[in-house]
Amino acid sequence: MAPPSALEVFPETDTSTFTVPDRLTIQGIAKRRAASGKLIAGAAAPADIASFKGLNHHIHKSKAKRWEPRMTEEAKSRGGSSLKNAAKFLKTPGLISLGGGLPSADYFPVEEMGFVVPRMPLQGTNKVSTGDSEVDGRPANSTTQITAGKHDMAAGTSAFDIATAFQYGQGHGSAQLLRWLVEHTELIHDPPYADWSCTMTVGNTSAFEMLMRMFAQRGEWILTEEYTFPAMVESAAPMGIKVAAVKMDEGGLLAESLDEVLSNWDETVRGGPKPFVLYTVPTGQNPTGSTQTLERRRAIYAIAQKHDILILEDEPYYFLQMQPYIAGEVTDSQPQSHQDFLTSLVPSYLSLDTEGRVVRLDSFSKVIAPGVRVGWITAPEHICERYHVHSDLSTQSPSGVSQLMLFKLLEETWGHEGYLDWLLHIRREYTARRNVLLLACEEFLPKEVVTWTPPMAGMFMWLKVDWKAHPRFHDGVTLLEVEDELFHRNMAAGTLLMKGSWFVGEKGKGSGAEEMFFRATYAAASFEGIREAVKRFGVAVRELFGLKQEDFGKER
Amino acid sequence: MAPPSALEVFPETDTSTFTVPDRLTIQGIAKRRAASGKLIAGAAAPADIASFKGLNHHIHKSKAKRWEPRMTEEAKSRGGSSLKNAAKFLKTPGLISLGGGLPSADYFPVEEMGFVVPRMPLQGTNKVSTGDSEVDGRPANSTTQITAGKHDMAAGTSAFDIATAFQYGQGHGSAQLLRWLVEHTELIHDPPYADWSCTMTVGNTSAFEMLMRMFAQRGEWILTEEYTFPAMVESAAPMGIKVAAVKMDEGGLLAESLDEVLSNWDETVRGGPKPFVLYTVPTGQNPTGSTQTLERRRAIYAIAQKHDILILEDEPYYFLQMQPYIAGEVTDSQPQSHQDFLTSLVPSYLSLDTEGRVVRLDSFSKVIAPGVRVGWITAPEHICERYHVHSDLSTQSPSGVSQLMLFKLLEETWGHEGYLDWLLHIRREYTARRNVLLLACEEFLPKEVVTWTPPMAGMFMWLKVDWKAHPRFHDGVTLLEVEDELFHRNMAAGTLLMKGSWFVGEKGKGSGAEEMFFRATYAAASFEGIREAVKRFGVAVRELFGLKQEDFGKER
Repeated sequence: MAPPSALEVFPETDTSTFTVPDRLTIQGIAKRRAASGKLIAGAAAPADIASFKGLNHHIHKSKAKRWEPRMTEEAKSRGGSSLKNAAKFLKTPGLISLGGGLPSADYFPVEEMGFVVPRMPLQGTNKVSTGDSEVDGRPANSTTQITAGKHDMAAGTSAFDIATAFQYGQGHGSAQLLRWLVEHTELIHDPPYADWSCTMTVGNTSAFEMLMRMFAQRGEWILTEEYTFPAMVESAAPMGIKVAAVKMDEGGLLAESLDEVLSNWDETVRGGPKPFVLYTVPTGQNPTGSTQTLERRRAIYAIAQKHDILILEDEPYYFLQMQPYIAGEVTDSQPQSHQDFLTSLVPSYLSLDTEGRVVRLDSFSKVIAPGVRVGWITAPEHICERYHVHSDLSTQSPSGVSQLMLFKLLEETWGHEGYLDWLLHIRREYTARRNVLLLACEEFLPKEVVTWTPPMAGMFMWLKVDWKAHPRFHDGVTLLEVEDELFHRNMAAGTLLMKGSWFVGEKGKGSGAEEMFFRATYAAASFEGIREAVKRFGVAVRELFGLKQEDFGKER
Repeated sequence: MAPPSALEVFPETDTSTFTVPDRLTIQGIAKRRAASGKLIAGAAAPADIASFKGLNHHIHKSKAKRWEPRMTEEAKSRGGSSLKNAAKFLKTPGLISLGGGLPSADYFPVEEMGFVVPRMPLQGTNKVSTGDSEVDGRPANSTTQITAGKHDMAAGTSAFDIATAFQYGQGHGSAQLLRWLVEHTELIHDPPYADWSCTMTVGNTSAFEMLMRMFAQRGEWILTEEYTFPAMVESAAPMGIKVAAVKMDEGGLLAESLDEVLSNWDETVRGGPKPFVLYTVPTGQNPTGSTQTLERRRAIYAIAQKHDILILEDEPYYFLQMQPYIAGEVTDSQPQSHQDFLTSLVPSYLSLDTEGRVVRLDSFSKVIAPGVRVGWITAPEHICERYHVHSDLSTQSPSGVSQLMLFKLLEETWGHEGYLDWLLHIRREYTARRNVLLLACEEFLPKEVVTWTPPMAGMFMWLKVDWKAHPRFHDGVTLLEVEDELFHRNMAAGTLLMKGSWFVGEKGKGSGAEEMFFRATYAAASFEGIREAVKRFGVAVRELFGLKQEDFGKER
């Protein structure tokens, strides 16, 4: 059976524009908040997520598919935390509690916490960056100081404070920060089913592990890109979960290959049932840097419907989308307004998810800082509920220190608008970094051996090396031998690039056996460093493949 | 076979004093640091824990038992994070890395972070506390401001900064904070075997869950106190791990009962193999408030040796040890020096652990703040290694924001001495709180029905109610019916106490079927609140049991 066409599947949803009448806007958030009243959430208070979504705002949409039948015994049997049930009694007026063992905030040895953060919109952003923080200072008036006190809530000066954030919390995180995350998610993705929800995580790696424990058993398989994030494979393997590769092209995962793997699944050969979880990084994929187009996503979603599978959409690089690269152009055009910016983003699987078959993993690691260890998932309510009950009995909740910092920054200082300004800034910076790498590749690499596709998003570039051009290819040298030789020559020349073979998800499968790649990142080195590293790589490649060295002269 | 006597097992270790010649002291820490040189640990740097322990300092001790044979398939098969292996190449001089996808610190939108914290030793600590933070202010000069900048390490002004703490980290946490934790652990416990180590956790609930995945399979049992922390049972249950109760008295877990349960284990009746993990909270146990004496701990350790079991020592309340309560005494004596304080602490299992059969779980939740979500375990190196490899592929590491805050507070502001001052402060405060509760119980409760043992540690008191004195006892009323009736009468009177039955670990087992308890905490209510709550409880009990109400007059 052919997959249903994308247009038949999504007749009413055009998520590439923002013309759906009641879609949430930044202005709409203020109105919704005014209607729902002041947020009051004390120590370990459960969040009223329905009110954050706007009561009745999503009621016209259909409900998510129920995934309980596919959940593991572990996930299904997990009860709530019984002591937290006693918290319901705390609302009794006049009650004195000698119940919960929450320490008094008097014994938290922090009276005040403060941060110096950039003001939005940034000043002086037209200055050309050099990628070197020793050189690029920000003007002094471009920052602002924010402060949280211990008892700001009692004093009425803030909706969140040290006494509450530093106390025990709920598995879904604090209501204060969660409200912001729910609003942000709706603003960007507007999930097209009614009962979506969000719950905080301690990051996408942890979220992936917890979701595996919810949906896969020892001996089962999940599906993913043939080149994938190794920590994912390494996290799944000890649980006895194996990874089946789906082929990719420069636009990422191939819908046809997904359909083929699922349609031809042979339990006897594989030793496990047909998978029902697809793990994918649709935007700026690690390691290939590929980004799936809207058409590709629709086709893959249709295959997911056909085989009734669940999509784990891991999107740390979603906001590192860039303008198309045009060779020789030093600066490129950027969105001129928040609306332009939002419209420019490739729609997520979540925004196409009419049936509630997507679990989206969002992270602050690439856009705020990895060390905050705060992320969130968006999924059908009953999946979020199972997730936060698990959190209650494991990670408990993300760090309250991190949560309070993010709240002061995102909610009280930047707001949703300021955050979009920040994302635009990051986008400009990564675009400039990518362009430096691409220009260096064009200048220094021998194109007869090394080829690439300019990435549209993320922080990685995937360099294909024609290993069959190696002088000893006809003498039987193997791909892995050539790869290792080039890796070490490159190291000897003073450049670290990652071997493509480290990213093969299903060992021995996929085109990994025929093609050779190296992964380069433009995330962190200075512009000069990026140029120099690529130049050294060019020298190493020419040496290895017996090509004539070019004279590029002294570095400018 | 009788268990070996404690004296035979520990001939050379007297851990109740600090006279062992080479035992680490606060002064010794400074010397050790001077000898090992400046700590330099950049982004995601692996920690050299051996140097934190002092090279050769523990070499005279014997090595830990190897626990690999008892580990689960999941724990044994977990490989490291392959990409982190590439980090070893980063030491190459002159290398430019386009390898790891670590974002540049330029894109962390925090330039500076600061905290206002109490100065140690505290000023004005002789003031009588009322337990009410609205009334008890601290003098303004009693606090100090601490600040962390983004590039303090590059500037040479600190060993830790925002650029590093906010970056990705290692599963064991940052070297900077871990060094302090290792030193603190040695200072307090001086583990009597050579290859002990520490690794950070995101809290004891998460540590418990991760240790269960390391040591127990579906269908297996673990041992614990008959009344226990419900979240532990609730975390283990979905993994298919069952809890076997060991009887307790007012001094906690009974060694004889532990021996009996293990000696008489019947696989057929239980449907699972003889357990080899004991989970215990030895100090200020939740919910009973009981503390095991040194003699009790030695006896239990000997039983653990006899049956070759592993002890999980969960110690969130360890530093909430207090002076013995003497009725009618309003203030009690307190340790006058750090040495007095350390000597006064009941020795931990870790400090008795000659064989490496203890995994100690430490937490900042009760002594700094629960919201930091930073704790650590101390265990044989090979257990810590399996733990941090799991962290690398799940929680990643505790929040860097929390870690930097703790580093600035514990390492740079208080030091080891200042932290002991803080712990002494907390001890005084909890002692005062406990005494208020005990005085209120003596004043307001009918002793013919309600009895208790003054807790020596922790934040909980365990009130035994003679439910057989209930007017309908001879008409067949059950314990659970009386407990529920008293719970609700108490709520109607305006006091929340926790039902003892909520804490029964192995349902239907242990004395839980015969005795009735309520748990009260003195952790958080004001002194007046504690008195009033107990007074209300007394009224509720007298009503339920048909006793004459006393006239206590107006609250003072």
